[in-house]
Amino acid sequence: AALPPACPRHLLPLSLGLFQGALLLFFALFVTYDKPSAQTEDASLVANQLHGIFPLFQDIQVMLVVGLGLLLMFLPRYGLSAVTHNFLLLNFSTQWALVLQGLLHHFQRGQVHLDLHNLLTAEFAAVTVLISVGAVLGRTSPCQLIVVAACEVPVYLASEWAIVTHLGVLDVGGTITIHVFSCYFGLGVSKALFGMAQRPVHPKETPTPRSDLLSLMGTLILWVFWPSFVAVLCQPGDAQHRAILNTFLAMSAGALTTMVASSLLERDSKLSPGHVQNGSLAGGVAIGAVADMTVLPVAALALGSLSAAVCILGFRFLTPLLARKLVLQDQCGIHNLHGLPGILGAVASAVAILVASEDTSGSHFSQVSPVGGNASEVAGRPWGDRGAGRQALYQVAGLAVAIGGSLLAGLLAGTALRLPCLARPPERLCFDDALYFKVQDQAESPELGSPAEEGALALKERV
Amino acid sequence: AALPPACPRHLLPLSLGLFQGALLLFFALFVTYDKPSAQTEDASLVANQLHGIFPLFQDIQVMLVVGLGLLLMFLPRYGLSAVTHNFLLLNFSTQWALVLQGLLHHFQRGQVHLDLHNLLTAEFAAVTVLISVGAVLGRTSPCQLIVVAACEVPVYLASEWAIVTHLGVLDVGGTITIHVFSCYFGLGVSKALFGMAQRPVHPKETPTPRSDLLSLMGTLILWVFWPSFVAVLCQPGDAQHRAILNTFLAMSAGALTTMVASSLLERDSKLSPGHVQNGSLAGGVAIGAVADMTVLPVAALALGSLSAAVCILGFRFLTPLLARKLVLQDQCGIHNLHGLPGILGAVASAVAILVASEDTSGSHFSQVSPVGGNASEVAGRPWGDRGAGRQALYQVAGLAVAIGGSLLAGLLAGTALRLPCLARPPERLCFDDALYFKVQDQAESPELGSPAEEGALALKERV
Amino acid sequence: AALPPACPRHLLPLSLGLFQGALLLFFALFVTYDKPSAQTEDASLVANQLHGIFPLFQDIQVMLVVGLGLLLMFLPRYGLSAVTHNFLLLNFSTQWALVLQGLLHHFQRGQVHLDLHNLLTAEFAAVTVLISVGAVLGRTSPCQLIVVAACEVPVYLASEWAIVTHLGVLDVGGTITIHVFSCYFGLGVSKALFGMAQRPVHPKETPTPRSDLLSLMGTLILWVFWPSFVAVLCQPGDAQHRAILNTFLAMSAGALTTMVASSLLERDSKLSPGHVQNGSLAGGVAIGAVADMTVLPVAALALGSLSAAVCILGFRFLTPLLARKLVLQDQCGIHNLHGLPGILGAVASAVAILVASEDTSGSHFSQVSPVGGNASEVAGRPWGDRGAGRQALYQVAGLAVAIGGSLLAGLLAGTALRLPCLARPPERLCFDDALYFKVQDQAESPELGSPAEEGALALKERV
Repeated sequence: AALPPACPRHLLPLSLGLFQGALLLFFALFVTYDKPSAQTEDASLVANQLHGIFPLFQDIQVMLVVGLGLLLMFLPRYGLSAVTHNFLLLNFSTQWALVLQGLLHHFQRGQVHLDLHNLLTAEFAAVTVLISVGAVLGRTSPCQLIVVAACEVPVYLASEWAIVTHLGVLDVGGTITIHVFSCYFGLGVSKALFGMAQRPVHPKETPTPRSDLLSLMGTLILWVFWPSFVAVLCQPGDAQHRAILNTFLAMSAGALTTMVASSLLERDSKLSPGHVQNGSLAGGVAIGAVADMTVLPVAALALGSLSAAVCILGFRFLTPLLARKLVLQDQCGIHNLHGLPGILGAVASAVAILVASEDTSGSHFSQVSPVGGNASEVAGRPWGDRGAGRQALYQVAGLAVAIGGSLLAGLLAGTALRLPCLARPPERLCFDDALYFKVQDQAESPELGSPAEEGALALKERV
Repeated sequence: AALPPACPRHLLPLSLGLFQGALLLFFALFVTYDKPSAQTEDASLVANQLHGIFPLFQDIQVMLVVGLGLLLMFLPRYGLSAVTHNFLLLNFSTQWALVLQGLLHHFQRGQVHLDLHNLLTAEFAAVTVLISVGAVLGRTSPCQLIVVAACEVPVYLASEWAIVTHLGVLDVGGTITIHVFSCYFGLGVSKALFGMAQRPVHPKETPTPRSDLLSLMGTLILWVFWPSFVAVLCQPGDAQHRAILNTFLAMSAGALTTMVASSLLERDSKLSPGHVQNGSLAGGVAIGAVADMTVLPVAALALGSLSAAVCILGFRFLTPLLARKLVLQDQCGIHNLHGLPGILGAVASAVAILVASEDTSGSHFSQVSPVGGNASEVAGRPWGDRGAGRQALYQVAGLAVAIGGSLLAGLLAGTALRLPCLARPPERLCFDDALYFKVQDQAESPELGSPAEEGALALKERV
Repeated sequence: AALPPACPRHLLPLSLGLFQGALLLFFALFVTYDKPSAQTEDASLVANQLHGIFPLFQDIQVMLVVGLGLLLMFLPRYGLSAVTHNFLLLNFSTQWALVLQGLLHHFQRGQVHLDLHNLLTAEFAAVTVLISVGAVLGRTSPCQLIVVAACEVPVYLASEWAIVTHLGVLDVGGTITIHVFSCYFGLGVSKALFGMAQRPVHPKETPTPRSDLLSLMGTLILWVFWPSFVAVLCQPGDAQHRAILNTFLAMSAGALTTMVASSLLERDSKLSPGHVQNGSLAGGVAIGAVADMTVLPVAALALGSLSAAVCILGFRFLTPLLARKLVLQDQCGIHNLHGLPGILGAVASAVAILVASEDTSGSHFSQVSPVGGNASEVAGRPWGDRGAGRQALYQVAGLAVAIGGSLLAGLLAGTALRLPCLARPPERLCFDDALYFKVQDQAESPELGSPAEEGALALKERV
């Protein structure tokens, strides 16, 4: 199980090492912490803000490191690689985003002040990478994944700037900027990298009951902490409270709808593990753009149900269709979990803005609370004096920018991945930890070994 | 592995779909969010309250979704079903409780205002269902489980109203209202459903070391977060602090006692995995009713130890006895984990009230802090002018109501489950994921497949 | 698989039972809760403090119970024992530390007031035990482990008093007092217990891909929550914020460096699972002593990278060397994860103090914020009027005390473990759950049983 000869053996450690050197240099030159607050009152305020945001930050860390890691374990022999590559990409992309954020956004001010808020926005950039590579899970080398991350983070920052800062799109939970963006970036990469020929089902890509179980535990961890992800950057107080409740309702409704849709679509009313693993989370993807708006609770429920149904239908009908017609490979089904519900959520945000504006004279409208805190807010409408119709249009425009930009950039990045030096694993070695990890061959050394096998085990040594 | 012919194939998705429609209708007509606070001071108060309760809410979500899900995985071939049914029941029961709470408690006010506190009380209603179905785990179809939930939630709400609101029983951690109630409801269901004939041990219900390990991880997650469950509805400040400490002490003492009791009862001083999985949590069940009272720390330790010992003794002696004499099946041993420690905790709460009242003139009594905040509180005694003796009596009365009501309701619900349309799985297909999930047969496709088996795997496709 | 005849069968339950009795007595005589605050303002302050510390407390509980439990599961047949012994030791050591803390520190005041802060410091004492026993994992009986805990907790409390209170060493995250101390205590125990003869690799101590995967999940849980561990006892506000950021940076840099170092050292640029499991955490060990100091972010990054590199190099070269030359067994590699990075962190803290003092006249120095709150602080320098050079010396002196004291005490404790009554398991029964748990023999009853095996399973019964 050696790497193919075309691959320079130490490309990955060398490039990561170089990156670490550059990171150290950048931090040494430009990055400091905030000045500590001089007055006692400010110190107490800092402490209170920290107590408000830190538990949510930790929840998000659990989601990205543990929850997503487990979710990717549905490939039965690729667990170590899936989790480790996810962990590697999270760290690399966060650090890379910190560098780029520092260079791009704060450079004018001379020094970059690092705080928990910066870290969070850098992690959000990393999330897009973690989602995108789901499309090519198991058939890509870590070198290739690092290249994806290196390309995607700057494109995400540009796209996020264009959509949120320039267009003023409302998207507190990242439905458009994170989920839709990363989905089409990932599909672009997959198409450019693998889109030449149909490929048969690989013997190692079929989940086993045990790998499905671990993956399901990952889903549940993501399900539990999703409200923290959506609400962490909300205005503290009512808007954050509403974002938490809306996200909970959408995810709870989506979980039930997933069971309904999956058993209606499968033979004998059985459930498909893959449906449950993904559909349960679709509501959380869709709710992000409207979570802190003053929608009624029923809207969150309906959006959650609808997006779960769309997700399951996508798995059942759209993924096979795309694979057949467009020769598009989507290993984790990110189009069904992030693309379709994301589009639904973006459209829902436009509708919610139009509906809220119709209530102008009524009591509902006064409930619109300031979000984001930009100066142009007028009478509690977060879109300022722009007009609801126009804001709704901007939401859709933001969606278009996210899809178009990410698809294009993804195709370019995917083309770069075809460079022979990036060590794409040969087909027969795909989906197997043995290519990247020093492990015993799983077929030779079953955990439930008989005494006869123990002699063989004794010949190897640990670490 | 087809469902028995008597079962209408789409009963589950259709009934869940109908429920979701009704839920949407109810929410559309009646449910809104709280009006946002107009003033800045209020907004900061809302933010502070949210920061206080949200991390505990997330802890409880982890317990119910991840911890309990893992705990139920001791059946080696039933992991996907156990976790998914637990997740399904949690969502269905919470939504159902939100509807009923809305109808019953708030209907007079015209509109129902949803907040995180409502969600929490609805989740507590769902917890009773999750506990009760432990008695019949693995031998019931999802249709039957939904019927249990549909019956149990309204009975719980009525029982909780009778015990807490009407009788004024003190039970901040749900020892009586949640644990005792759900235990006897579940036993009632089990007796009515299965109580006709002894049944031999099923070949698939014996845990393996690996399934025991996952179950133990579930125990540990529940153990860690139990203080959040007990303390979440406490008065913030001293009472909540005390509830957290008492719960920690009870669970820590219970964990040690579990090891002692289990190794004393087993051959060769070995531990039984089932004992560790359950006994470690018994202290948390028992402490709920006294957690925020001004008991001394030693009382929490003693109660934790005692309840763990009672739990282990129950597993060793009472469960086999009940199975033999009463033909009572209790798959997860809920009587040992929730019933016996719950009764112990209820009695302990009566004793604690009596002891506290004897200290009236002393320094201890002034430590009694207001709990629950009802108007009739006098001089810091949460039972107002009722008198300690009478309050102690009411605690016991509440216990009796919980046991009697739940047993009766459970027997009725269990009888309803015998309807042939509810698709009780035939004995030989019990405890097997293959009945409810589209999975590979585990015997045919071991994870540790040899190359020869990979051809077979390649014929199947994912999702 | 019976215990050796020399072992009194009930030694463990009897000694634990005796301890529990003594614990109850001690608590009954001496321990109460804080008096509740009489005034409303105080109550709100208590509530705020609780909201600040409780989520971090829960994070640490997750680390110790779930994260560390999973990390120890790399021994494929020893999972139940590793997790359960870890859980047992955590509870025993915490209770034992509460007793000793009460006796030693608070006895003069007549009564011991228990609060969450006491619990935390008691848990930190327990952490040292959990780390130390990693050196002898799998070859020691629970009786022996309890003796280790009984010896180590008082020595830790004395050492912590000497280092922090007496010498005034700054070590908010326990780099010196916890990690270095516990490492050398554990190595002392291992040397005294096993250091007589080389022993061959045991057939059951080689990890399988599955056990490596569970262990890796434990690493990731520890990685996520490590900032809570380091920051929980920091001054709320800026210092805590800085500690969180520094810890995150160190761990994130360490994670990348781990990948680089491991693939440079292994054949074919593959990763070693053991390297990833341990190296990713080394940054968190090293950062503890400087986390709340006013170091620049780049220092945290550099320290994290350096300690990860040292950890991997230790696994690759030092552990085999120590095993060969000193006949030193270190099953979990605690010297690489806790010893080397701990020493590095202690040296770094001395350097940071010297560097900060050179900035006295500049702007950096005014950022030094009060830590620990002892009265002798002058102008924001936490080492008061001692002078930076002297404080740096004291940091190194604290390191020497930690290493010397723990090594000596560990050797003594390890000698005590050789008592024949403590039931050291015979070599051929090591690393196997069957010695301590009533489980099916794993070789006889594979989870993936064929129908033929189900008859045999049916003969056994659960719990």
